[in-house]
Amino acid sequence: MTATILEVKAPSIYQKIGAEFVGTAALLCAVVGSGIMAERLAGGNVAVMLLANTLATIFALYVLIEIFGPISGAHFNPLVTLVDLFALSKSDANLMKNIHASTFLITSQLTGAAVGTWLSHAMFGLDLLQTSQKLRGGSGQWIAEVVATGGLIFVILRSPPGRASALVACYIGAAYWFTASTSFANPAAVLGRLLTNSFAGIAPSSAAGFVLAQCVGAMAAAWLARRFD
Amino acid sequence: MTATILEVKAPSIYQKIGAEFVGTAALLCAVVGSGIMAERLAGGNVAVMLLANTLATIFALYVLIEIFGPISGAHFNPLVTLVDLFALSKSDANLMKNIHASTFLITSQLTGAAVGTWLSHAMFGLDLLQTSQKLRGGSGQWIAEVVATGGLIFVILRSPPGRASALVACYIGAAYWFTASTSFANPAAVLGRLLTNSFAGIAPSSAAGFVLAQCVGAMAAAWLARRFD
Amino acid sequence: MTATILEVKAPSIYQKIGAEFVGTAALLCAVVGSGIMAERLAGGNVAVMLLANTLATIFALYVLIEIFGPISGAHFNPLVTLVDLFALSKSDANLMKNIHASTFLITSQLTGAAVGTWLSHAMFGLDLLQTSQKLRGGSGQWIAEVVATGGLIFVILRSPPGRASALVACYIGAAYWFTASTSFANPAAVLGRLLTNSFAGIAPSSAAGFVLAQCVGAMAAAWLARRFD
Amino acid sequence: MTATILEVKAPSIYQKIGAEFVGTAALLCAVVGSGIMAERLAGGNVAVMLLANTLATIFALYVLIEIFGPISGAHFNPLVTLVDLFALSKSDANLMKNIHASTFLITSQLTGAAVGTWLSHAMFGLDLLQTSQKLRGGSGQWIAEVVATGGLIFVILRSPPGRASALVACYIGAAYWFTASTSFANPAAVLGRLLTNSFAGIAPSSAAGFVLAQCVGAMAAAWLARRFD
Repeated sequence: MTATILEVKAPSIYQKIGAEFVGTAALLCAVVGSGIMAERLAGGNVAVMLLANTLATIFALYVLIEIFGPISGAHFNPLVTLVDLFALSKSDANLMKNIHASTFLITSQLTGAAVGTWLSHAMFGLDLLQTSQKLRGGSGQWIAEVVATGGLIFVILRSPPGRASALVACYIGAAYWFTASTSFANPAAVLGRLLTNSFAGIAPSSAAGFVLAQCVGAMAAAWLARRFD
Repeated sequence: MTATILEVKAPSIYQKIGAEFVGTAALLCAVVGSGIMAERLAGGNVAVMLLANTLATIFALYVLIEIFGPISGAHFNPLVTLVDLFALSKSDANLMKNIHASTFLITSQLTGAAVGTWLSHAMFGLDLLQTSQKLRGGSGQWIAEVVATGGLIFVILRSPPGRASALVACYIGAAYWFTASTSFANPAAVLGRLLTNSFAGIAPSSAAGFVLAQCVGAMAAAWLARRFD
Repeated sequence: MTATILEVKAPSIYQKIGAEFVGTAALLCAVVGSGIMAERLAGGNVAVMLLANTLATIFALYVLIEIFGPISGAHFNPLVTLVDLFALSKSDANLMKNIHASTFLITSQLTGAAVGTWLSHAMFGLDLLQTSQKLRGGSGQWIAEVVATGGLIFVILRSPPGRASALVACYIGAAYWFTASTSFANPAAVLGRLLTNSFAGIAPSSAAGFVLAQCVGAMAAAWLARRFD
Repeated sequence: MTATILEVKAPSIYQKIGAEFVGTAALLCAVVGSGIMAERLAGGNVAVMLLANTLATIFALYVLIEIFGPISGAHFNPLVTLVDLFALSKSDANLMKNIHASTFLITSQLTGAAVGTWLSHAMFGLDLLQTSQKLRGGSGQWIAEVVATGGLIFVILRSPPGRASALVACYIGAAYWFTASTSFANPAAVLGRLLTNSFAGIAPSSAAGFVLAQCVGAMAAAWLARRFD
């Protein structure tokens, strides 16, 4: 009869799509933009570049997960959306409905990633449309992406309640350094980074290997995380 | 009849004005002072300078928001005060009263910013009165200020309760690196930085463009944040 | 009769062993991997190398303690397991049973440490099997390991509830820099670092001195921590 | 009649003295030791040295305040003890008793500071007994110590409950960079740093000026903090 002051409106699907779009755009803008800034300022010291890139990325991640988590879950990553989809769907009816929603979310992540990269180009006065020429690959890098993505999914699935924002940010902060690939761990990030010929870029011909490795890592982590239930 | 032990005295308008003055002075003192220190020590490595400047700024921001938040809301930024003014005023009567208070708060922010810059000059043995000669502008930098300020206002408006101190600090930590302008995002900061011819400075002729872009960003963010209610 | 919604299944011994194995492997992978990455990128600036190594290590530690703490206590360190064993066992019967469990946990820590190092080699395209040639020792280094391990055990024993993850991570972040040995503080870490001829390595002939010093530090800290009960 | 499970034993005066001694020793050991390490590794890049010194100091501060706060209040600083003494003593009788206790606490802080510095020398294989030859002073540096200490005392007096550890650590992290003196802000730290001829040292002839400025800052901050009650 009477609404309580604690009543919270559940976010609409449009708000979720908007949150994934804005959040993924902001994330890629932070990753690519801080890479460009670091490249310009670091005078060739790649470790200092990666340090700056790391800090900007994890600060952005923490903020974005805190802000958009209550709206869309703050995935910003198609593999997180897919793991979430299969983990949460108990019945076939649910699954069909959730697949529908997930398709929209993933589309907005991919679109957001591209727009975020372009926004960083606009800020730094670069050509909006670019393609990376930085080749990344080989068995070491692929193993690294399996590890990086597996760790990310494992951390998300095993985070204590309310800690995911800090844990994901810290995890990526470590993984930028301990994985040989600097931890892309996200197909939407691969797409955004395809579109920039700067520090954070990845050449189109290297993308498929990275995304495949990420899928393997995500599946392995989802399996492993279950073992600790 | 009986006062409870939880009774807390509401801060007076004088305490609010004092909090905004001291807080903004401390913030600019930290921004400008750490820039001077970094410039002296970094031996020309601009990335290391900006890294030190970033850490000092965000540590100061976090502390100042925690300390002065309960007193004045810890705005330290005329645009935050203005957004707060229009977001909170439900009736015309309220609006008139709040405009009055906001005028005093903004005045104390601007005065505090100048005093903070001068204090940092006093500590580092520099001439107190200076004017920056560092030109900052062009469409990339202006877009950057739109993005930087928009992001700041969005983060403030969408922070979960009690998280604004950490989220604003982390946001600025990222934005120093991913925006091409190193994220001034605050007209009071522009004023304070006008008054120093050091690392963090901005030439007077560049100020109007920055402030205008900041206003655009703040309005856009206030509109966008509403979409997620 | 009826299960409550708060009922939590106690982790099995297999899950504890798995948590210590995966956690210690991930920790060593982060320590060794970030050392290799830093060595490749830092262009000979050892301070920047250690800075990157520090950040990656403490981010990893924080995440791993948060994730695996609820399962196994997140020791990742034989000395922590031993201190825990003697602190918690009130009767001889308990002690015998706990010794049994601790043996398995320590074995999985040591195995995990080796596997973690090898995984980092795989990612960076190095020979899996290596032995460090970096001699570390002398009275200064041994005092440093006494201090480093003593501090770690003291922090663990005196942490307020729920703070151990942040406090251990911050402690190690400081100890990497203020101890002359860069704070190994963990016999499992010594084993893992024996097996890599990279930045984080330690020569086999230096291992015994480090582990002995660590044992002395752990015992002293356990004694001292009791004085504050 | 029956003890409750929440009963907590109040720390004895001996435990408080021990906490201030161990805590201040650990703090100086971290400050001086990380300075020596940074000096050895940074290859002359002073900004990187101070960055490492900053991180080690604030991680140590955070941990030490968390660990020893519940025992002694974690002052580690004679001025904090004195401010606490006058703020908390309501009657003359209390004051006399508290002066007595404070004398012991300050003595243990000063002794601890010396021992901490010597311990860092032992770890790094340096002569235990040294005297700094680094002159620090002039009006800029003295203003800086007024600001640094005033800020510290203000932050301590106005911290929301349970936040002092994080706020003091973050404050010092900023103040190392924005004050021209790198923020000693503590007479016990001055004493410990007198005794080392390394990065963090201060010459004996410079000590009196620093301590005097610190006293002025502490008194001003205690006055100012009251204005916001």
